[in-house]
Amino acid sequence: MRGRLLRTICSIALVTAAAAPALGQSDRWYPSPWGPEDQRGAANRLTPEKVLEARNLITRGSVYQLGHVYEQAMPLFGTRHFSLRIPQTYGPMGVNRTMYHDEVVSAEIGQVSTQFDGLGHIGIGDLFYNGNDRADFSRGDGLLKLGIENVGAIATRGVLIDVAAFKGVAVLDGNYEITRADVTGALQRQGTEIHSGDIVLVHTGWGSLWLTDNARFGASAPGVGLDAARYLVEKEVVLVGSDTWATEVVPNPNPELQFPVHQLLIPRNGIYIFENLVTEELARDRAYEFAFFYAPLKLKGATGSPGNPLAIR
Amino acid sequence: MRGRLLRTICSIALVTAAAAPALGQSDRWYPSPWGPEDQRGAANRLTPEKVLEARNLITRGSVYQLGHVYEQAMPLFGTRHFSLRIPQTYGPMGVNRTMYHDEVVSAEIGQVSTQFDGLGHIGIGDLFYNGNDRADFSRGDGLLKLGIENVGAIATRGVLIDVAAFKGVAVLDGNYEITRADVTGALQRQGTEIHSGDIVLVHTGWGSLWLTDNARFGASAPGVGLDAARYLVEKEVVLVGSDTWATEVVPNPNPELQFPVHQLLIPRNGIYIFENLVTEELARDRAYEFAFFYAPLKLKGATGSPGNPLAIR
Amino acid sequence: MRGRLLRTICSIALVTAAAAPALGQSDRWYPSPWGPEDQRGAANRLTPEKVLEARNLITRGSVYQLGHVYEQAMPLFGTRHFSLRIPQTYGPMGVNRTMYHDEVVSAEIGQVSTQFDGLGHIGIGDLFYNGNDRADFSRGDGLLKLGIENVGAIATRGVLIDVAAFKGVAVLDGNYEITRADVTGALQRQGTEIHSGDIVLVHTGWGSLWLTDNARFGASAPGVGLDAARYLVEKEVVLVGSDTWATEVVPNPNPELQFPVHQLLIPRNGIYIFENLVTEELARDRAYEFAFFYAPLKLKGATGSPGNPLAIR
Amino acid sequence: MRGRLLRTICSIALVTAAAAPALGQSDRWYPSPWGPEDQRGAANRLTPEKVLEARNLITRGSVYQLGHVYEQAMPLFGTRHFSLRIPQTYGPMGVNRTMYHDEVVSAEIGQVSTQFDGLGHIGIGDLFYNGNDRADFSRGDGLLKLGIENVGAIATRGVLIDVAAFKGVAVLDGNYEITRADVTGALQRQGTEIHSGDIVLVHTGWGSLWLTDNARFGASAPGVGLDAARYLVEKEVVLVGSDTWATEVVPNPNPELQFPVHQLLIPRNGIYIFENLVTEELARDRAYEFAFFYAPLKLKGATGSPGNPLAIR
Repeated sequence: MRGRLLRTICSIALVTAAAAPALGQSDRWYPSPWGPEDQRGAANRLTPEKVLEARNLITRGSVYQLGHVYEQAMPLFGTRHFSLRIPQTYGPMGVNRTMYHDEVVSAEIGQVSTQFDGLGHIGIGDLFYNGNDRADFSRGDGLLKLGIENVGAIATRGVLIDVAAFKGVAVLDGNYEITRADVTGALQRQGTEIHSGDIVLVHTGWGSLWLTDNARFGASAPGVGLDAARYLVEKEVVLVGSDTWATEVVPNPNPELQFPVHQLLIPRNGIYIFENLVTEELARDRAYEFAFFYAPLKLKGATGSPGNPLAIR
Repeated sequence: MRGRLLRTICSIALVTAAAAPALGQSDRWYPSPWGPEDQRGAANRLTPEKVLEARNLITRGSVYQLGHVYEQAMPLFGTRHFSLRIPQTYGPMGVNRTMYHDEVVSAEIGQVSTQFDGLGHIGIGDLFYNGNDRADFSRGDGLLKLGIENVGAIATRGVLIDVAAFKGVAVLDGNYEITRADVTGALQRQGTEIHSGDIVLVHTGWGSLWLTDNARFGASAPGVGLDAARYLVEKEVVLVGSDTWATEVVPNPNPELQFPVHQLLIPRNGIYIFENLVTEELARDRAYEFAFFYAPLKLKGATGSPGNPLAIR
Repeated sequence: MRGRLLRTICSIALVTAAAAPALGQSDRWYPSPWGPEDQRGAANRLTPEKVLEARNLITRGSVYQLGHVYEQAMPLFGTRHFSLRIPQTYGPMGVNRTMYHDEVVSAEIGQVSTQFDGLGHIGIGDLFYNGNDRADFSRGDGLLKLGIENVGAIATRGVLIDVAAFKGVAVLDGNYEITRADVTGALQRQGTEIHSGDIVLVHTGWGSLWLTDNARFGASAPGVGLDAARYLVEKEVVLVGSDTWATEVVPNPNPELQFPVHQLLIPRNGIYIFENLVTEELARDRAYEFAFFYAPLKLKGATGSPGNPLAIR
Repeated sequence: MRGRLLRTICSIALVTAAAAPALGQSDRWYPSPWGPEDQRGAANRLTPEKVLEARNLITRGSVYQLGHVYEQAMPLFGTRHFSLRIPQTYGPMGVNRTMYHDEVVSAEIGQVSTQFDGLGHIGIGDLFYNGNDRADFSRGDGLLKLGIENVGAIATRGVLIDVAAFKGVAVLDGNYEITRADVTGALQRQGTEIHSGDIVLVHTGWGSLWLTDNARFGASAPGVGLDAARYLVEKEVVLVGSDTWATEVVPNPNPELQFPVHQLLIPRNGIYIFENLVTEELARDRAYEFAFFYAPLKLKGATGSPGNPLAIR
């Protein structure tokens, strides 16, 4: 038991000593600016005004589905699975002979294919958004706090950041770190600004590997680095999405760090991450600003949600 | 194959002979008006103009989430299940000690809680939308046709039909059949019209039993009867939603019929059904017209999808 | 973080101060007598001699299946679930038209219906059998130690302890605590002895409530109390089984204790527990001694296994 | 119903016309010799005498577990899956601080890894064992007839047929068809006979590819051909097991046939098949005769069961 005592002390020391300088952030990241009881993070930035701002971007009536298909052949991370079966047809019922099909699905449904990461998903050591200790809220039957059912609807202005086009390529390299200059440069090229309360989608082109080269797709990913992520934090976004499985660059250029951008966005700043989005059509059409609509499934106590969000203009 | 031909002929014969008079409909319901290869049904009515029509209804920036929570305690139909577990926390990874939570879910995910019924869900004997014979498309690994991944985005004008208010009650009786006159009367009371390509949501008040009296909630349901459903078909809606588990009246006043409105809407007319929606707040706020946004999860070969659709005005 | 430090200290204090006297046991229960690396506990008592001893009890060729059916209607504990679906028939394949059925199952498969509890199932605070700290072996993808795949085959002499008959009833009361005197008295009435390396099955009659009164079945359970359990530990059994869901008396007569017999048997003594067994026929036939055969499914990293063990004489 | 009659007639016609000559068998395979209502097939051959015969083979007390581990890394057929997760630890409960682990599993649990095929698993066209038409018994919630819960315990004499050793190799080739002469030759080499009511296990050596070369393991399989299978039918076995995923040779030398041995054994003769068994140790020890003990999990309405059967001598 003494070992556990020592391990706890060491954990605290490690987090404080090693991580803060690497992340370049103050370690005083909680309580949240939205209060010590807050569970919604940057979703608090969503207001009726943002809805109207989004509404004003709808001029053509063009609708883009940003979700991938969920299917057996898709890339899966680690030992996650996705199973869908159609049971024997039920019925017939009544003189009108009603017959029906169900499907039975089993999966890490919030972390396969197009996936929305909630505030219960990522921790720094044992601490999650707003300083919540997993010992206090993480339970077998569902998270007691930070569950995805708390997020609410996301209806706001969306901005596409086409970094691939800025770099003059169709697909960024697999370990390309998107810098602050890449982001600002891409925005400038597009003539687009980010407003507080927006969501942003980063287009890398990596999504073109989906189903065409799953092994390569999942082996690494181009994506935002820490400094670019800090820029997005400064711009007060609600969510950062991407056409990769990680949104951030993997592996990180600093080999000691694992998913530091996830930590910067989710627990430290309550900003959501949306992975495996289909951004190709938006990029093709130069749809840099759009109304964005998405609401996570209210899976009680879940850490994430599947989705098929809409971009409309 | 000859056997199947004979079976199909027998199916048609049975349905025509027994059900058609009861349904009061011609039995020539396929091929679809959208062509013999069509898999999307009334979703074909969705156009950029409908998106703009929806956009014009957004004046306040008020957003309503129409989905229920998915949780163990919710009412479930038959032997369907819903399981959500949070596995042991993964990590820590890296010097920054990233830890993460997944959830693993198992369920008839398209037919529990808030559920969107696709065109592969309901058949008349062995025949489904557009005359597709289940022997041709129903497979253990997923439907080969009519899968939910085909539906596309639904962004259109939405109309709430508050039948409970029209009848002067908070909650309709458990076996109350909503008639054509109820629908037109409610619309008239509201001063609302239905346009082609709209979605409609029927408010019965029955949703107030969700979690408060699950047994009663699931034992029956107030809902649209066949004549009211025909009216909605005439109005060329894309989808009929409701705050009950069935949308149609259950049991049907004709005890020989089982879910005849499901058959009228889904296979016969390619019109979708959305069940277990939260319509209470829309009714409370008299939000009779709104922009409606929803896209099913692209679960390949599935018959339905979960959801948390948005109504915005 | 200081809170966690304090909590850890308090945990240690609590376990040491409060639990040891209540359990009447020394708290020096690890390392295991079978060595600090042992993962099999009392299964180490199984030898070829025990197999031969079992063999000698087979005189009639009568076989008893001790497992219940796994079905939707069975009693389930807490939020556990059991789902079984038959997908659409696969095929036909070849000119010989092979068709086949699968079933897809989702469940806490080691803790529903007839269930064999392994050494990874129960802990005393954070410590499990052989002093293993869950932080060291409990992982989302499976336990790194103490997994059920380590147990091995159980082929040994089995003894039925018919406590219900000893008490002159068909079914013990729902909160009846079986005492040491009950066990020795029942054995004496039967003229049966327990040998080192045996498995024992306790017949309470409670199993008659299975499917006939699930609510009552699961609300409490007659079963062994701590002193009776100590007797079984002294007799060096390998496993204690029963026709109840808990094997021990629930609630425990000491209201401060939760499942103390599970702790005494599994982590402290490496003795397995087998719940929801069908002991009725053995009791009816007065089959007090028999050959017992069972091997857990080798579910890697699991905490338990389903089963349909055999008693043969 | 007339349609179904016509379909059944057509099915029989098709099967008779096309398959019977290829299989070299009379097509009058039902009703079963055990009666038109029988659901247990060759398990009817199991008697107390067979149990005693098995008992007499136990002389050393050596126990062999014949089941593989169920794990993520194992070979899986088609789109089947196997997921095991350990949820967050439950507890602590009581002053004694009981904590516990569950596992939640999702899989085609009767058709992954070591799997016992029941009589509901394989059909000839629409007809299954005893002429049961799948339209009559195959349901989404479980088979109404032929479910695995009907099989009962298998405690009988077992015979290993070491074909690999007979052929002088460690591993038979991937498409090697075991002939009647191979079987009789192997038995002769071993000095072993098959008795009515025995189970037989065919050792091919192919099991050595399990986890070492999954792709090759599953791409084909050495195994019994039709004539060898007929021999086993003549010997009135209860079950044929093997260390391959198919037990029969795949692909069949007649490219028009798919799994004809499965059809010969299961529907035509009610003989069970047990796949992915660990026969290596029995072969190594020349354990040609042994007591065999196995009982399927009583998964109601299932087509198969996982297992870890025992061979003892």
